[in-house]
Amino acid sequence: MSISQHLSQRARKFEPAAIRKVIARIQPDFISFTAGRPASVLFPLEAIYEQTGNMLEKYGPAAMQYSSTLGFQPLREWIAQRTPPATAKNVLLINGSQQAIDLVGRLFLEPGDKVIVSAPTYTTALSTFRVYDVEFLGVAGDENGMLPDQLEAALQQSPKLIYAIPNFMNPSGVSMSLERRQTLIKLAEQYDVPILEDDPYGELRFDGEPLPNLFEMAPDRVLYAGTFSKIVAPGFRIGWMVVPDEIFESLMIAKQSTDLQASTYAQMLLYEFVTSRSMNDHFDRIRSYYRQQRDWMIGAMQRYLPTAVKFHTPAGGMFCWCELPEGLDAEEILEDALAAKVAYIPGGSFFPNGEGKNTLRLSFSEASQAEIEEGIKRLGEIFANAIEAMAQ
Amino acid sequence: MSISQHLSQRARKFEPAAIRKVIARIQPDFISFTAGRPASVLFPLEAIYEQTGNMLEKYGPAAMQYSSTLGFQPLREWIAQRTPPATAKNVLLINGSQQAIDLVGRLFLEPGDKVIVSAPTYTTALSTFRVYDVEFLGVAGDENGMLPDQLEAALQQSPKLIYAIPNFMNPSGVSMSLERRQTLIKLAEQYDVPILEDDPYGELRFDGEPLPNLFEMAPDRVLYAGTFSKIVAPGFRIGWMVVPDEIFESLMIAKQSTDLQASTYAQMLLYEFVTSRSMNDHFDRIRSYYRQQRDWMIGAMQRYLPTAVKFHTPAGGMFCWCELPEGLDAEEILEDALAAKVAYIPGGSFFPNGEGKNTLRLSFSEASQAEIEEGIKRLGEIFANAIEAMAQ
Repeated sequence: MSISQHLSQRARKFEPAAIRKVIARIQPDFISFTAGRPASVLFPLEAIYEQTGNMLEKYGPAAMQYSSTLGFQPLREWIAQRTPPATAKNVLLINGSQQAIDLVGRLFLEPGDKVIVSAPTYTTALSTFRVYDVEFLGVAGDENGMLPDQLEAALQQSPKLIYAIPNFMNPSGVSMSLERRQTLIKLAEQYDVPILEDDPYGELRFDGEPLPNLFEMAPDRVLYAGTFSKIVAPGFRIGWMVVPDEIFESLMIAKQSTDLQASTYAQMLLYEFVTSRSMNDHFDRIRSYYRQQRDWMIGAMQRYLPTAVKFHTPAGGMFCWCELPEGLDAEEILEDALAAKVAYIPGGSFFPNGEGKNTLRLSFSEASQAEIEEGIKRLGEIFANAIEAMAQ
Repeated sequence: MSISQHLSQRARKFEPAAIRKVIARIQPDFISFTAGRPASVLFPLEAIYEQTGNMLEKYGPAAMQYSSTLGFQPLREWIAQRTPPATAKNVLLINGSQQAIDLVGRLFLEPGDKVIVSAPTYTTALSTFRVYDVEFLGVAGDENGMLPDQLEAALQQSPKLIYAIPNFMNPSGVSMSLERRQTLIKLAEQYDVPILEDDPYGELRFDGEPLPNLFEMAPDRVLYAGTFSKIVAPGFRIGWMVVPDEIFESLMIAKQSTDLQASTYAQMLLYEFVTSRSMNDHFDRIRSYYRQQRDWMIGAMQRYLPTAVKFHTPAGGMFCWCELPEGLDAEEILEDALAAKVAYIPGGSFFPNGEGKNTLRLSFSEASQAEIEEGIKRLGEIFANAIEAMAQ
């Protein structure tokens, strides 16, 4: 006997994450633009240590005990205040916003269902939804988000769910304009489809005024997912969902049967931190840090990338996105880049149905100014060579 | 439109946990034997605070960053050493052992599959498996675990999985004898069925010598689940699985698509704690604490419960189990108990198919000596009255 013969149909289709294959090839002397990780220099180590003392004094052993599946009540209230028109009863604490995707799959998706995603979209959302044996309807976008015509064409195919990342999305850095948000909501109402709004980067806005969340625009239709991963640190694994009253109980039961509850300890600790005096300074600090990183990267891209490579300036988040001329394959070119000790993520794995071979993602969260300058310079030469080779 | 109309078939069947309904009725002046929670006086607050400083100094910002889905390598090694014949490559860190049940569902179960469970068994395992739309084959047991004849009869019905809690199980406190463990393994081999071994209480042995884990006896067939919830504290939400090489990759991908990884911060902190000098003292302390609690409760049960109420002395864990005479309903009698300000958990919700109406669970983890004495005395009177009323 072999135990793997007993695996479910679903488990037989599991595939390792494509991004991890690239990251596994990076050597210590490489310049890497691969990681979707926050810059660890921004983690508030001292403040967290200080708040640990406060927390243990304030809550005592309750900080280490089982607690409600719903989440720590003061933290639910803090989240609700930041997510109008929610109240605490709409808020459920989870293990990072990634878990929202899985829980929404559990709540809404049956085998064969169709899910609308932007193309490109967050790659681990694709693999999580695939566990529920669904098909994807990919909707292309421009600098303002999903294209309304394509979105409506997809809605005509009876999808079960729309998955959207309206702010500075991973991987493209695109933020949806107000008009596109309104159109998305209008069409979702018209075709009666729920929306999962994944918003890990909303607080990392560098330019322009904040736009309303989809949840704010349609609180009866949208399930909102947020996280501390990008604004405090991902190592705590604390995120949240804000959902309509009507399905809150089902969501809570889904969470309970998965893993009982999010960490009491981490919730209390993060609550103490985000309500401490240092929090506003911390927010300002991370925004200006990533803005500077973005400026360095966009500056280098403007100086060094061939004009045939298309990109735009993201107004927030952690990512730049490049489109090479049609016919080029970013996965093939990655071999030259790795030989030159520079790494990026080829864009193909962010597309639901095998498109996007000529695209790639550059993360600006972790590299130094010098690495950005030198790394983009090397990529400029490699892309220029590839364009020239194709022309011959 | 109403968003709940879009719920999946699976979500429409979700039901709130029966135990929580009882717990919701407990008032501050009640004596409660309901909770499956560890005693919070045992939580090592000072040691954890001290280790937080050590951890942040030793690992710096890495303690707050994303890390491998596999888990923190030194902690994987520590767990492997305690789970022969595993090595670190068999160990995956998860959010408490509860998540093992969900991940095993994902890996092995299709709608309509049959799962063997003891009757009674851990109630949240039943609700988690139900998400995968399975049927249960309940196997009755005695003081030594599942009855071999019933187990074999269940195995003849082509089950997909055996779920077992060999040590001091929740709810019955029963621990499987060595002979029953050997029989279980032999039958599982013969009928070629994988086993999920759920072992939250293994370290809480008060009497007798430790017995081998099922994983140790059949490391190619058993998926083992352990947790820090009962030996350190549940609020960190850190548990682990130890599984055969052959399915490790599939399990890791299942974990990744669910929520990326267990908390880096909590893993490093717990690693520092369990490898610190205070750990052996801590283990001794929790064992002798719960042994004392058990002795108080069993003593009171021997003094106050009518002889028609059957119970045995658990050799470890947190729970005593009572069987009232056939025909009595522990859920009805609970109304009298609550009126007398004492609470327990009726046993029905621990059975897969509606049996066990005359059973109930008494937790000895949290009540004081005086509460145990007084609470069991009151229950003795209530049970005696119910037995008398039935006889009339």
